[in-house]
Amino acid sequence: MKVLWIFAHPEQRSLNASLRDEGLRALTEQGHEYRLSDLYAMNWNPVVSREDYALDPDERLKVAGASATALTEGRLSPDILAEQEKLIWADAVVLQFPLWWYGMPAILKGWFDRVFTKGFGYGITDSGGKVLRYGEGTLAGKRALAVLTVGGRESAFGPRGVNGDIQHTLFPLQHGTFWYAGLAPLPPLVFYSADRMGEAEYSTAAKELRRRIETLGTTEPVPFRTQNGGDYDEDLVLKPELAAGRTGPDVHLG
Amino acid sequence: MKVLWIFAHPEQRSLNASLRDEGLRALTEQGHEYRLSDLYAMNWNPVVSREDYALDPDERLKVAGASATALTEGRLSPDILAEQEKLIWADAVVLQFPLWWYGMPAILKGWFDRVFTKGFGYGITDSGGKVLRYGEGTLAGKRALAVLTVGGRESAFGPRGVNGDIQHTLFPLQHGTFWYAGLAPLPPLVFYSADRMGEAEYSTAAKELRRRIETLGTTEPVPFRTQNGGDYDEDLVLKPELAAGRTGPDVHLG
Repeated sequence: MKVLWIFAHPEQRSLNASLRDEGLRALTEQGHEYRLSDLYAMNWNPVVSREDYALDPDERLKVAGASATALTEGRLSPDILAEQEKLIWADAVVLQFPLWWYGMPAILKGWFDRVFTKGFGYGITDSGGKVLRYGEGTLAGKRALAVLTVGGRESAFGPRGVNGDIQHTLFPLQHGTFWYAGLAPLPPLVFYSADRMGEAEYSTAAKELRRRIETLGTTEPVPFRTQNGGDYDEDLVLKPELAAGRTGPDVHLG
Repeated sequence: MKVLWIFAHPEQRSLNASLRDEGLRALTEQGHEYRLSDLYAMNWNPVVSREDYALDPDERLKVAGASATALTEGRLSPDILAEQEKLIWADAVVLQFPLWWYGMPAILKGWFDRVFTKGFGYGITDSGGKVLRYGEGTLAGKRALAVLTVGGRESAFGPRGVNGDIQHTLFPLQHGTFWYAGLAPLPPLVFYSADRMGEAEYSTAAKELRRRIETLGTTEPVPFRTQNGGDYDEDLVLKPELAAGRTGPDVHLG
């Protein structure tokens, strides 16, 4: 497989960097090809701006429209284009980051803000005008694995933990970003109590990461519903007979 | 009241900027004081780095510890300190942004990543060593109102909408960030179909915003449970008799 590994940690001597190196070694040993987007090392700019789309100085910036036009007309900023090309090249994406304030570090959030332009990450229609998202789109058929470290202990991120269920915390990424753009999200790999990891815990974590790399192509993706598969009505609301009487993020699991 | 208005949109001729100006006028007319952090206008740097903490070049960056030490020793970057001082000054925070990929624009996410340092936004303990968070901490007693624009229609963000319930999408911000740091989150103000807003819709939106500004000091906050109020056990799991048999973000509402 061809794997794009996106890494977002500011310290090359960190737990995250060690795990990244472990993962990349595993990929090579298993005969895969990879490319690495090490966002801090690249000095990645995460801030959407009019410069991204080479807009005329007087033109009002409307992000969606401007990004779609720039994509079509070949005027997207080269750093955005390079990332889009890596995504097109890849069969799978690994997204590795420390969880900060229950989300991605800004440098990584801004990778999506800038790279997933209209016409690439969203706003895709088929020849009949049907909107392709949630399981369809430019990136359909590819896989995505989130690998993250969390300072807190596992119990606090469980179904009734004080920090909220980690699966729900990751819903905007797994469902709202990966799946929205067509990428099939795998169950995330979460390392808890990351600030207190000793040698034994690290060894266990590295093994677990290797196991997930080995099964990157075969692990069953999270079974989110597709938008166009008939489960949602004209208002994009889940039909009443499905997950009947229930609400919450899990109703979008088929 | 003293209000800190945090604004994160790249275009001063946008719907968001018009709503911001409307809100700031309302504050003035109602006799409140405000400060504005217009992140794009300030050219705010959202990327956590070792420079934030004036670390020695050879020292390994551990973000939590380094930020706490820099805070204590007065070595935090001046731009971070300035935002912390505004927060200390304020009675209420308004956080205004367009929802991008089901989260904040990177420039705003990185405002939290950098400003909510250890010892300020988290890692606060009382004299007995008890951890103060989720309703307690440096910012306890202050209020927070999220004001956001969303491209999609309202039905798609409802309890069974394809995009997920907006209340759950905002849980990492409302509960995991505001409430974690002590800020009492008010029900968010969400403007849907923002890309298709005509004059009539804008007028309605502006009125609704003014109404929310008028009631900024009196609106009942979202009733999230406190961590130390007895609702969670030693593993920080919600006690079984509370929201019995249920899971999901709403179990943290008391």
